[in-house]
Amino acid sequence: MKKVDFSQIKITGGFWRQKQDMVRNVTVNAVYDRFKETGRFDAFKCQKDTPLAPHIFWDSDVAKWIEGVAYLTREKREPQLEAIVDEVVDLIEKNRDTCGYFNSFYLSREQENRFKFRDCHELYCMGHLTEAAVAYYEATGKDKLLRLMCDYADYVERVFKIEGTAGFETPGHEEIELALVRLYECTGEKRYLELSKHFVDKKGCESKELTDWTALTYCQSHKPVREQDTAEGHAVRAVYLYCAMADLALKYNDQSLVVACKRIFESISQKRMYITGGIGSSHEGEAFTVDYDLPNLVAYTESCAALGLSLFAHRMLLLESNAKFAHVVERAMYNGFMSSTSLDGKSFFYTNPLEILPNAITRNTSVTKQTDWLPNPQRSEVFDCSCCPPNIVRYIPSIANMLYTHDDKTVYIHQFMESQAKFSVGEGEIEIEQKTSYPYDGKVEITVRGMDCRVAVRVPEWCDCYKGESNGYMYYPVCKNGTVITLDFKMKPRFVYANTEVLANAGKCAVTYGPLVYCMEGCDNEGHLRNIILDTEGSAEVGFNKELSVPTITLDAYTRKSNGELYSFNKGRLEKTKATLIPYFAFANRGVQEMQVWHLYK
Amino acid sequence: MKKVDFSQIKITGGFWRQKQDMVRNVTVNAVYDRFKETGRFDAFKCQKDTPLAPHIFWDSDVAKWIEGVAYLTREKREPQLEAIVDEVVDLIEKNRDTCGYFNSFYLSREQENRFKFRDCHELYCMGHLTEAAVAYYEATGKDKLLRLMCDYADYVERVFKIEGTAGFETPGHEEIELALVRLYECTGEKRYLELSKHFVDKKGCESKELTDWTALTYCQSHKPVREQDTAEGHAVRAVYLYCAMADLALKYNDQSLVVACKRIFESISQKRMYITGGIGSSHEGEAFTVDYDLPNLVAYTESCAALGLSLFAHRMLLLESNAKFAHVVERAMYNGFMSSTSLDGKSFFYTNPLEILPNAITRNTSVTKQTDWLPNPQRSEVFDCSCCPPNIVRYIPSIANMLYTHDDKTVYIHQFMESQAKFSVGEGEIEIEQKTSYPYDGKVEITVRGMDCRVAVRVPEWCDCYKGESNGYMYYPVCKNGTVITLDFKMKPRFVYANTEVLANAGKCAVTYGPLVYCMEGCDNEGHLRNIILDTEGSAEVGFNKELSVPTITLDAYTRKSNGELYSFNKGRLEKTKATLIPYFAFANRGVQEMQVWHLYK
Repeated sequence: MKKVDFSQIKITGGFWRQKQDMVRNVTVNAVYDRFKETGRFDAFKCQKDTPLAPHIFWDSDVAKWIEGVAYLTREKREPQLEAIVDEVVDLIEKNRDTCGYFNSFYLSREQENRFKFRDCHELYCMGHLTEAAVAYYEATGKDKLLRLMCDYADYVERVFKIEGTAGFETPGHEEIELALVRLYECTGEKRYLELSKHFVDKKGCESKELTDWTALTYCQSHKPVREQDTAEGHAVRAVYLYCAMADLALKYNDQSLVVACKRIFESISQKRMYITGGIGSSHEGEAFTVDYDLPNLVAYTESCAALGLSLFAHRMLLLESNAKFAHVVERAMYNGFMSSTSLDGKSFFYTNPLEILPNAITRNTSVTKQTDWLPNPQRSEVFDCSCCPPNIVRYIPSIANMLYTHDDKTVYIHQFMESQAKFSVGEGEIEIEQKTSYPYDGKVEITVRGMDCRVAVRVPEWCDCYKGESNGYMYYPVCKNGTVITLDFKMKPRFVYANTEVLANAGKCAVTYGPLVYCMEGCDNEGHLRNIILDTEGSAEVGFNKELSVPTITLDAYTRKSNGELYSFNKGRLEKTKATLIPYFAFANRGVQEMQVWHLYK
Repeated sequence: MKKVDFSQIKITGGFWRQKQDMVRNVTVNAVYDRFKETGRFDAFKCQKDTPLAPHIFWDSDVAKWIEGVAYLTREKREPQLEAIVDEVVDLIEKNRDTCGYFNSFYLSREQENRFKFRDCHELYCMGHLTEAAVAYYEATGKDKLLRLMCDYADYVERVFKIEGTAGFETPGHEEIELALVRLYECTGEKRYLELSKHFVDKKGCESKELTDWTALTYCQSHKPVREQDTAEGHAVRAVYLYCAMADLALKYNDQSLVVACKRIFESISQKRMYITGGIGSSHEGEAFTVDYDLPNLVAYTESCAALGLSLFAHRMLLLESNAKFAHVVERAMYNGFMSSTSLDGKSFFYTNPLEILPNAITRNTSVTKQTDWLPNPQRSEVFDCSCCPPNIVRYIPSIANMLYTHDDKTVYIHQFMESQAKFSVGEGEIEIEQKTSYPYDGKVEITVRGMDCRVAVRVPEWCDCYKGESNGYMYYPVCKNGTVITLDFKMKPRFVYANTEVLANAGKCAVTYGPLVYCMEGCDNEGHLRNIILDTEGSAEVGFNKELSVPTITLDAYTRKSNGELYSFNKGRLEKTKATLIPYFAFANRGVQEMQVWHLYK
């Protein structure tokens, strides 16, 4: 299977057009402003004494922002943003070491500690700069950064693969592995692919030690990758590694890697993933924990992890055309990823909880500073570890990457977005137009023309009116002169139940509408959300919230009115009420208040 | 109202006889052994260089143990234990400062920091030594420790009340306040009562500051005590203060203190108390938090706090004969206190959770040391801060303190224990014999003789077959020649529901049997406890667990069998099952496993 690059697809309207416009008009600038004022851009000057001390991962923040600018540029040039990028590139060229090494933190602060500590993010930063270099070259034709990063990659190859002179053997934070695959794809230089394979093969076989507070699972070094069967450790690091494993599995036709990727995918999607597609349930190590451990109030579920999961799941579609992978892409991108960003595009969640209890945040009245960990109940414009905002800047403009894969005869339609695409398939060229109001309406009209072939359309996981083949796709023959496929997946509010092993959700249900997970917020409902009991046999009305500009769901429900005593032998009166829900991605746009995804039901 | 000292009552059989025998035969020695080997006894030698560094609160650990020995001695002398006590007393006499000051930590380690830091427990230790001194004198007639503590109290009066030369104005950890009342009662020296009042009156009016990590609520210094209307801060410190407030309210007939005590009691019993009588819901500050914040899995609910609550609640009965106070004594002593001790009497809980999920304890697989706080799922023989074990040693032998109060005409029977009592009432002397298998059976036969008067028998909160007067007591005339009152409160399994403001228990119920709160443990039930749905309309059978020697309750219930998918539109099958529960106090005697007090219900 082959991928279809987003540059061959134009999002022409609907949900993602609105989000892409938001990134272009608001987010890319908002993130720049915050990064500029926190010193992240000036850090590239590599000055010894700056008022704002650089951090070891700042290069990656800016790199992801550059990658985002590059993607925006594919559709419409952005001279002002490009000027900023060019300035950063000039600074890298000016300040890098003659050997090719570049890291603003180590060059300005700790020359002597270069490549000494595994957890210090140098290769992670290098990986993101490499992705940025490839993207910027492909978007603008400007190759300076690409050349700089090739030099850097050559140096990394020497230090880590040829000479083995670094203080560690594989990166503590994966990213370079998948970046080197992109560098290979862009340059055709096979050494880069082999360097990626070197790092991936070495995982779990390192002889050098970890930091003292992390277990080997933390950075996926507990076993050689081909033996790994569960998703472990820091969730973002993990999915970036799994992306590289899937890439290498494809490039090398490495079946043992394919098998490992599939096993890990099952571990995530069947045992360690929130209904939102969020992953990494613990703040300790920002990490996967044990099977079915998915607490709601203290969910970590970093935005970058949901994003990374969608990247991994989509890559799996290149190894096997099975809808289960695309289901996870859909789940993550509309929920656990999209919740990361405020509706105005200016502020961001690092963590994405599935429940908020304001009282829990202020419960410790006897201490001056609460140390119990709880996710932030509101988004922020920038944070110390501000990896998520620029990841959003690069992800949304390239979201159409998720739409299609193909082989010589069949084009797989994995996702549904109002769009026009034109790309080569085998010897021919195909045009695909999608008209849809997805994710708010299940009607999709797909027009295909340009060559005789087949299209395979994914039946969404939540749809119960179509049945695909065993892999979850419906196959349609299409003809050169144009074929129109008109579908209606028929969205409706549905109740979802977790596996009873997920103890956090015992006795509870969630509500979905098409691909969207819904949640309750305090301001739409009377009383405490935890006391609302949904009537799963009652009526469900779809409405619209003008303030948030999203469809709402109003359900029959009950609340219990207790008699005021702290403990009573009396159950209390069950009263009929209505519960109103909004899409999960839209929560926390109206102040700090109660929120929950999992509800009691009757 | 007047109190009836336990020394006038003999527990003749049943639940508390068994527990008192356990303390005498096992616990008092087990605690001694652990304290001896951890250096707590040798610390009284006040040597500069000891292999085990003393801790600032070690004196209080030994003091409470001495108090326990004294209480055991009231019933039967214990020469070996007394010899240990006498040795400690000699060491205090030998090593104390000429001014009367004694603290093994400060005398051996930090002479220069005496009475300098508010949170350093010197007055707390002094208070416990004073209680021990009074108890030991009353039990044995030996007055050496009493004299030493009088000297110490005189010194404290000078430093804190007359000269004001200490580094702080009121203790960071209350205890001395109630101890000084006892010292006054024992010696008749009113200055000690006035010193207690001085400390209590000064609370919340101090000009000197707290430690940097605690709020003023932590040690109840947020307001003058007469203005306090909620239970705040460190729960043990709080209830010890409230005990002293109740004592002083009585001694001084201080109505503003009475009103404050009643307000605080309502705050605890109606908004901040677990169903077990446990208090202090947060490990941060070991403290009360906000109303209705009573999480089960992370419940702190220190053993000493439940014990202290029962002491406070019983004191309230001296201010007003209202059953609501005795209800709380009963709730705490059979549940949140009694759970502190293993059935073999050798190991102890510091914290008493209302739910245990073994998976939650080991969930953080990516770090080498989990920092998320969770209560210990198993009791330990000794801990660094081992305040609870000796508190148990002093509480159980004196449990009969909770039975009666009286005025000149009426004896109030608050609690039910197989026992014989003989004490003065007004001009006469009364004998009361209780025959009962309480808390396992509701039948109580009360024989009263010796004088014509009235007895008032509390109707337990859980009993629905008797109705008392508005204060919750049934009044019976009794005659000199003997009156027999035969009651059957008719215990049966009952479902309890929390106020809907207690969000932790939304959609859940607890099960009680008489005064006992019941819980489920994993080994008695199939599957995860959180998935068991109790049928509140179903049958309930009372059985017996031989291993634990406790009555069990078996209830009709359901479990849901999901289809194996992580998320499904299918609710899963509801299957009939049975749920078996044991008394909460008996949990964690069969290894680490799931436990819960609050259950889903249908």
